[in-house]
Amino acid sequence: MGDKFYNYIKKLQIEITSEFEKIDDSSSFSNDKWFYNKGTGGGITKIIENGKLFEKGGVNISSIGGKLPKDIIKQFKVKYDLFNAYGLSLVLHPYNPFVPTIHMNIRLFELLNEKGSVVDSWFGGGVDLTPYYIFKEDIIFFHHNYKIICDEFDTKIYSEFKKKCDSYFWNSHRNEARGVGGLFFDYLRENNKHSLLDWYKYIKKFGSTFLPTYLNILLKRMNTNFNKSHKLWQEIRRGRYVEFNLVHDKGTLFGLKTGGRIESILMSLPPKVRWNYNFKPAPRSKEDELVKILKKPVDWIKIK
Amino acid sequence: MGDKFYNYIKKLQIEITSEFEKIDDSSSFSNDKWFYNKGTGGGITKIIENGKLFEKGGVNISSIGGKLPKDIIKQFKVKYDLFNAYGLSLVLHPYNPFVPTIHMNIRLFELLNEKGSVVDSWFGGGVDLTPYYIFKEDIIFFHHNYKIICDEFDTKIYSEFKKKCDSYFWNSHRNEARGVGGLFFDYLRENNKHSLLDWYKYIKKFGSTFLPTYLNILLKRMNTNFNKSHKLWQEIRRGRYVEFNLVHDKGTLFGLKTGGRIESILMSLPPKVRWNYNFKPAPRSKEDELVKILKKPVDWIKIK
Repeated sequence: MGDKFYNYIKKLQIEITSEFEKIDDSSSFSNDKWFYNKGTGGGITKIIENGKLFEKGGVNISSIGGKLPKDIIKQFKVKYDLFNAYGLSLVLHPYNPFVPTIHMNIRLFELLNEKGSVVDSWFGGGVDLTPYYIFKEDIIFFHHNYKIICDEFDTKIYSEFKKKCDSYFWNSHRNEARGVGGLFFDYLRENNKHSLLDWYKYIKKFGSTFLPTYLNILLKRMNTNFNKSHKLWQEIRRGRYVEFNLVHDKGTLFGLKTGGRIESILMSLPPKVRWNYNFKPAPRSKEDELVKILKKPVDWIKIK
Repeated sequence: MGDKFYNYIKKLQIEITSEFEKIDDSSSFSNDKWFYNKGTGGGITKIIENGKLFEKGGVNISSIGGKLPKDIIKQFKVKYDLFNAYGLSLVLHPYNPFVPTIHMNIRLFELLNEKGSVVDSWFGGGVDLTPYYIFKEDIIFFHHNYKIICDEFDTKIYSEFKKKCDSYFWNSHRNEARGVGGLFFDYLRENNKHSLLDWYKYIKKFGSTFLPTYLNILLKRMNTNFNKSHKLWQEIRRGRYVEFNLVHDKGTLFGLKTGGRIESILMSLPPKVRWNYNFKPAPRSKEDELVKILKKPVDWIKIK
């Protein structure tokens, strides 16, 4: 399954980056190959900076193997300490403040016994949208598209994964959500209902839903006029993104602890960020609307 | 001791902020009083933004009391869960990239039994310098000044506190220091050698060393010409400061966990910050000199 999955995410990485390069043919993604120096394998980091669409963005894949650090073994509550991890992870920070930041990742994790045989494996992943200004129809469209592929597979999972996303991307120290949610799932392993291959089919559908969904929103909003105050708001909100990723995000902290490639892990951080003291948007402003919406998860399917 | 110490830091806060207001009379510090909503007490947050000297800076005092969260009790390995905490904390992010960022804090922590009597108390604190460009004489001067007040008290503590500072302000995921060090100390409690009052005298000397030391460096460098590339470097290095504070700094995480006032805790974050992908300064440049120095703690007294 490892090789199969890695071949899929390799193709997906190229599909996604070349699509964006077509839309903005003045910018292109870099192509950094790296090797995992604490074990075997490595990855390909593709980064774009100062593009017309993206002020910064990364679409990374990796396939690494090695020994789990002790505190991770405790956290996972597992008996074996050899692992393989395969994943695609993307974060795109658009230039235009009316286009939302998006994050998506899919991963396969394998635990191996001392003989090197896979004894447990599971898929994980997620997608979530972080707007700076609220366009309700965009958010509904986003959730709706992901609900379709969930429902095709199992009508119970959309609401389950949506709830997990809301609780995962919660900036608890601010008492607000990082964004308007999406899906989040982990430990998708063989069970009474679904085989690992079933989950793999779901994961592929999930991966392929990204481009048509995000492109629709991007193309609609990327030419919206904006001024300095919109940009200021975007930079302040990006600060919240940094706070979440560095204080709460398990994926980032796992990467830092397992000695992953630092520049690939922290590619998720936005390009230009501000922390103004006690910045509060004007009551009933567009900025204030965002803050209010982030205070409590919304059921974007129901309000349709 | 609590009241005595709080009176001292109240005066020190005003002394420090009014000195900077004298030098740049076009900017002034705000004065935000707040109350600790998870217990008793509160604090005064004094912030300056977009000043000629400081792009952002804060000099805060607080005096709070309440119940310790469970994970903090475990971390401290204490028997009692009632506490008082008094502290002054400052972080100054200068506008000119040739002036170093500085952080200083002093605090008194008291544990109380169920009757409300103080059963244990200790001082803690620290000071450290984070330059963007290296002026060796400034760093030596800084360390030298703090060594003097340490030696006056006990000739053993400078090297002990200096080492603690180097190991505390270590950005382990980057394998580099946050800055060029200073002093760091904690659990300064009554022992065979020193009473709590002795430590209080030391703490006051320590607190009073800040202004003459930092002013000397600030006044010397604040009018140095700089260009966009110096400013870019400053903003990129500020990113490392954010990474340290949000990933590693126990003080920040303690504040976030005990439900402290979020804007006062995160006032330490710099104003404008950048994360460029895989930014590497040119070999043998001034920027590269900084990076090399941060790879390993330097004994700034010896190289004098």
